[in-house]
Amino acid sequence: MEIRILLLLYSISLLYSTAISTSKITHRFPSSIVAQPENKLSFSTKTELYDEKFFTQILDHFNFHPQSYQTFQQRYLINDKYWGGPNTNAPIFVYTGNEGEIEWFAQNTGFLFETAPLFKSLLIFIEHRFYGKSIPFGGDKEKAYSNSSTLGYLSSTQALADYATLIIDLKHNLSATDSPVVAFGGSYGGMLAAWFRLKYPHVAIGALASSAPILNFENITSPYSFNNIITQDFRSESENCYKVIKGSWQEIEETAAKPGGMEILKKAFRICKNDSGNSLEGWLGTAYTYTAMTDYPTTSNFLNPLPAYPVKEMCKAIDDPKTGNNTFEKLYGAANIYYNYTGNATCFNLDDDSDPHGLGGWTWQACTEMIMQTDGSNAESIFPESEESYEDRVEFCNYEFKIEPRPYWITTEFGGHNIQRVLKRFGSNIIFFNGLRDPWSGGGVLKDISKSIIAIVAKEGAHHVDLRFSTDEDPKWLREVRRREVHIISKWLSQYYHSLADSSNE
Amino acid sequence: MEIRILLLLYSISLLYSTAISTSKITHRFPSSIVAQPENKLSFSTKTELYDEKFFTQILDHFNFHPQSYQTFQQRYLINDKYWGGPNTNAPIFVYTGNEGEIEWFAQNTGFLFETAPLFKSLLIFIEHRFYGKSIPFGGDKEKAYSNSSTLGYLSSTQALADYATLIIDLKHNLSATDSPVVAFGGSYGGMLAAWFRLKYPHVAIGALASSAPILNFENITSPYSFNNIITQDFRSESENCYKVIKGSWQEIEETAAKPGGMEILKKAFRICKNDSGNSLEGWLGTAYTYTAMTDYPTTSNFLNPLPAYPVKEMCKAIDDPKTGNNTFEKLYGAANIYYNYTGNATCFNLDDDSDPHGLGGWTWQACTEMIMQTDGSNAESIFPESEESYEDRVEFCNYEFKIEPRPYWITTEFGGHNIQRVLKRFGSNIIFFNGLRDPWSGGGVLKDISKSIIAIVAKEGAHHVDLRFSTDEDPKWLREVRRREVHIISKWLSQYYHSLADSSNE
Repeated sequence: MEIRILLLLYSISLLYSTAISTSKITHRFPSSIVAQPENKLSFSTKTELYDEKFFTQILDHFNFHPQSYQTFQQRYLINDKYWGGPNTNAPIFVYTGNEGEIEWFAQNTGFLFETAPLFKSLLIFIEHRFYGKSIPFGGDKEKAYSNSSTLGYLSSTQALADYATLIIDLKHNLSATDSPVVAFGGSYGGMLAAWFRLKYPHVAIGALASSAPILNFENITSPYSFNNIITQDFRSESENCYKVIKGSWQEIEETAAKPGGMEILKKAFRICKNDSGNSLEGWLGTAYTYTAMTDYPTTSNFLNPLPAYPVKEMCKAIDDPKTGNNTFEKLYGAANIYYNYTGNATCFNLDDDSDPHGLGGWTWQACTEMIMQTDGSNAESIFPESEESYEDRVEFCNYEFKIEPRPYWITTEFGGHNIQRVLKRFGSNIIFFNGLRDPWSGGGVLKDISKSIIAIVAKEGAHHVDLRFSTDEDPKWLREVRRREVHIISKWLSQYYHSLADSSNE
Repeated sequence: MEIRILLLLYSISLLYSTAISTSKITHRFPSSIVAQPENKLSFSTKTELYDEKFFTQILDHFNFHPQSYQTFQQRYLINDKYWGGPNTNAPIFVYTGNEGEIEWFAQNTGFLFETAPLFKSLLIFIEHRFYGKSIPFGGDKEKAYSNSSTLGYLSSTQALADYATLIIDLKHNLSATDSPVVAFGGSYGGMLAAWFRLKYPHVAIGALASSAPILNFENITSPYSFNNIITQDFRSESENCYKVIKGSWQEIEETAAKPGGMEILKKAFRICKNDSGNSLEGWLGTAYTYTAMTDYPTTSNFLNPLPAYPVKEMCKAIDDPKTGNNTFEKLYGAANIYYNYTGNATCFNLDDDSDPHGLGGWTWQACTEMIMQTDGSNAESIFPESEESYEDRVEFCNYEFKIEPRPYWITTEFGGHNIQRVLKRFGSNIIFFNGLRDPWSGGGVLKDISKSIIAIVAKEGAHHVDLRFSTDEDPKWLREVRRREVHIISKWLSQYYHSLADSSNE
């Protein structure tokens, strides 16, 4: 039995061989085109954005075994170009790193760089343990990832304690203990930012949690929500586009099952080498899913280089009468938007599992605590109907790591149930941003909880679009979202400085 | 070099042989009289108070190693006699167990039993891991306590996660998921109750943290504070009493150093077997310290059986002209109040390290995270002048466990610095009770932080006196403290039920 799991930004997909489940597709499967996408920022620009530093971090904050005391080098990026410094208690803005190389996140979080001159803020991007260069066990990734005994230290609570420890030490070293810290993050990093404010209010005075699906656990969010939003994204562009995609899965399977069918598919989709019909379904599903997630209003290069409004572009390719009635040509045109916007690819490896941003550790996280159910597809779904299967996950995780998921742990540790009631009179200073075109928005906080735990919802927005570098083409609603975020954060800072003055006068 | 550490309710004392430090006394050294004190509650009464149950608890909440998944049986005590039940969402009052057998704490927390009929509350007393019957590694205490590899799982964060896990599971099993939970605790248990509300607001709607010295870390509270309060307790009874005790240390040392001097001391203090002058100093220091801590306005039996206002009684014994001018007779009279109020003891073992309430694990906690500095004595102190020595602790902990303390961890994880500023706009529903005669009150929260994070301070109060069973002799101020606590908790519950009704109507 072949079992595989791949991920990006929390998504977990189980690919079974056709013998087990022909209808199950891996629609959140990250695949890379043969031609590597260029980075939007050149190396020379990157070095202007930040310096790279390392902090000696403790391996295990919560236990006191001899091995708990082991340390590792945790990377962080720092930009002090605009910082007002300790004498004015100028703020420190911290990005709580997600499941990948921190440079990638930093380069896609222009909001911090662009607001630094205004806030005179110091910028710190902390890399999450077990990702990028922040690898325990002497930086030996092979060893760190070798089995559950070493991977066991990869957890969200350890990561949050890392951030607290590093920030406190850094502030001390900078003689900036009274500088207020605000946490920022997108996606899993946004979940960490929100949780960081809730668990470490003595370290961060507030948090901007962008596209943070903290409610995508247990039964709080429907397992159909994720795919329903993707469905709606495509359907909102064109009913025909939705219908073509929805109808295509059966056609692909029928073709793949025919003698010579794989040759037809291989040619239609410019597949480099022999692959299965399942791989093709996964490859297409990934394109639709990630395009929906990154359906930004401007050209972008987060997961792959994409045009502005890429879902619209995909549907245009499908709806275009010039492509005739051939479903495969239409789908190929759509997939080409996601996989080959630069036009450099000559053929595609469907099962390419290269991982340019170093996201592989998420498989472990999705097998232990990040049990985010997003695989359900109901009758209306753009994907084939299917049920979320917790059992499949258990089976996979046992196979891959010999580990059992803890599906109730995140809500035990961080809550989530009845969040409105729980946080109505507890906590403060959190912004939850969500764009409703982002499939993850279904697991986000979409309603204000209190006067200072605020939901900003952008109907037209996608995955943490607010945190991206601004462009001249940004639509008005996006400028307005950022303006509001700046306004709210300014208020937190102002309140903090008032409290600081009050306590000095005591 | 002989090094020993003993503890009770957080106090850590380092006893050096005279070769190292003759002036250092172990004044927070628990010693037991030869005659065991009776329990105030007979066995038949105890069984009426609660039933004993066990919960299968996970060993390591924060990591995902194979060994993290091991489980142990965690004890909890339950009383459902007065519970209104799940249909009315009647409340659940949880005592977050401290560093000892949970039955002992339950039997000294009458407040919960006495208010249960009023609140129709379910009572749960959860035992802290590694104490009482809640021993990991198959309940094998010898194994669990054998070295740092097993003791490593004894930590406050694990304990809090235990409580969250147990409560959520219990509510689920009782079909009482909407029943509000309020956390209660005294001393270290009070610290845990306050931290539990701060870290798990989705589990507990509020906390009564009685005599919880959450600020006794790092430099937040002076290391002289603890002994200064003891000094003040005795001095407030009589200046002569203070002077006699203060002057006695030198006399004891001089006598012990004389030929035949130990015989004199042995006779004066009814010492059973040969002991050192240091042991005697520790034995006396313990008596003064614990008597100050438990300087209750009524007869009590928490640490030892004691009369009402025992500090006053001690000073009476010292000041009484009938005892003449012999310092040792005076001190013996005072010590007799603490060690022999029942009058059953015929002689005393100074170094008796019996541990009737199973508090031994605190030594580990004081060597890892609970770095509470209370050993400083300034010139005015009733004890010999001495400086708190972090180095002594490091040396001891290395000797005892080969472990290094983490002095900054508690404030990293739970905060403490600038608590007024941090919690002014964060968190809610905590009562911090402190009695100012309690030496631990110096590390407590003594000022209101916000409208719902409230400090109740009783000038005449001692260590978590508010939580004790009421008596007909309780002074008015104590009744008033409890009345206020009941009133505030009622308000939390009322607000909760309003929120619950609102969310049901949505």
